[in-house]
Amino acid sequence: MVAAARTRLSPEDRRAQLLAIGVRTLDDHSIEHLSFDRLSREAGVSRPLLFHYFGSRQGLRTEVVRLARDSMLHATAPDLTLPPLERLHDTLQRLVRFVHEHGGTFYSLVRGAASGDPEVRDAVDAAREVHTERVVAVFTELGHPDSEVLRLALRGWVALAEQMLVDAVGRLPDDEVVALMETSARAVVDALPPQRSKSSRLSQANR
Amino acid sequence: MVAAARTRLSPEDRRAQLLAIGVRTLDDHSIEHLSFDRLSREAGVSRPLLFHYFGSRQGLRTEVVRLARDSMLHATAPDLTLPPLERLHDTLQRLVRFVHEHGGTFYSLVRGAASGDPEVRDAVDAAREVHTERVVAVFTELGHPDSEVLRLALRGWVALAEQMLVDAVGRLPDDEVVALMETSARAVVDALPPQRSKSSRLSQANR
Repeated sequence: MVAAARTRLSPEDRRAQLLAIGVRTLDDHSIEHLSFDRLSREAGVSRPLLFHYFGSRQGLRTEVVRLARDSMLHATAPDLTLPPLERLHDTLQRLVRFVHEHGGTFYSLVRGAASGDPEVRDAVDAAREVHTERVVAVFTELGHPDSEVLRLALRGWVALAEQMLVDAVGRLPDDEVVALMETSARAVVDALPPQRSKSSRLSQANR
Repeated sequence: MVAAARTRLSPEDRRAQLLAIGVRTLDDHSIEHLSFDRLSREAGVSRPLLFHYFGSRQGLRTEVVRLARDSMLHATAPDLTLPPLERLHDTLQRLVRFVHEHGGTFYSLVRGAASGDPEVRDAVDAAREVHTERVVAVFTELGHPDSEVLRLALRGWVALAEQMLVDAVGRLPDDEVVALMETSARAVVDALPPQRSKSSRLSQANR
């Protein structure tokens, strides 16, 4: 683990390496456990060097969570050559694989959505927004009008899918986990009331 | 706010009063903001007295979250005289009302589920379990077999409902929020594959 200290790296590469070590710790520990002390031990570099790169423990945590989030979003990026439902299926399969390989990180990201730290929360909320946009795209391409209610329903479905991934990966066969998430998405959307336009809908809100 | 200090109360009543003030602060601040300093100011009592009652900041936070959770569960307790679907509808209506009246507290409870603090997390996870049991009862009474997959699906639905409540209460008419949650629950359950028994299902898990 002290290799990082002994190898000559450009500052940029060393910074990236330190962040990668930070992300790896998320597989076993929640983000609240990531401190300069711990990373200094794990990476074999001094605390002042960490301070130099990240400014504060908070800055370090935020960057680690952002990198973990971006890795997840990259690993599950939709294959746009596929038609909508096949694309959803493929994305969900890769999400299940990500949870198998990086369960702790995924769990940290789900929990980070509710973190007491606003920067961590924003970083993770952004991932939920991306997931929501991806699945909104699936259903609008299938002909569902893009509406406030469709988005509410699919934001809800993203929360449902996160919970199912945390609960079911490793307990049920992967294809059943994928099928559960997939059929839930279709069922929730199919159960929506007929849609008016977004603006007329919002004007009817009760406060 | 200094009334608490001036009134003669039994130790038990004073403790309950302090906890109630703590819960009230959740309507405007997250649980991470609840400290002896703040509660001492809000309740007009000394920090040593708070220490005497709650032992630690952590003990205070855990008890405040438990009381907030129990208030929510009490306010939304199912009316067992109603048949299953009417009971679900009625429970969801009262949940929407609770979010209107105690939005900050509800949000704290949802976020608490992902708290870095294990005691707070356990306290709030227990509420999710109660919500899950309540909705499992609705669907088993309707004739759906109680299975691992039904429970996974409905735990997912509880997460979906929490997200919809956070996003939609105050933006959409209340009856539409209730209808969205209600139809989602029915749709998710109706979309489940035909169920085998719980034990045969688990034995097929892929690890």
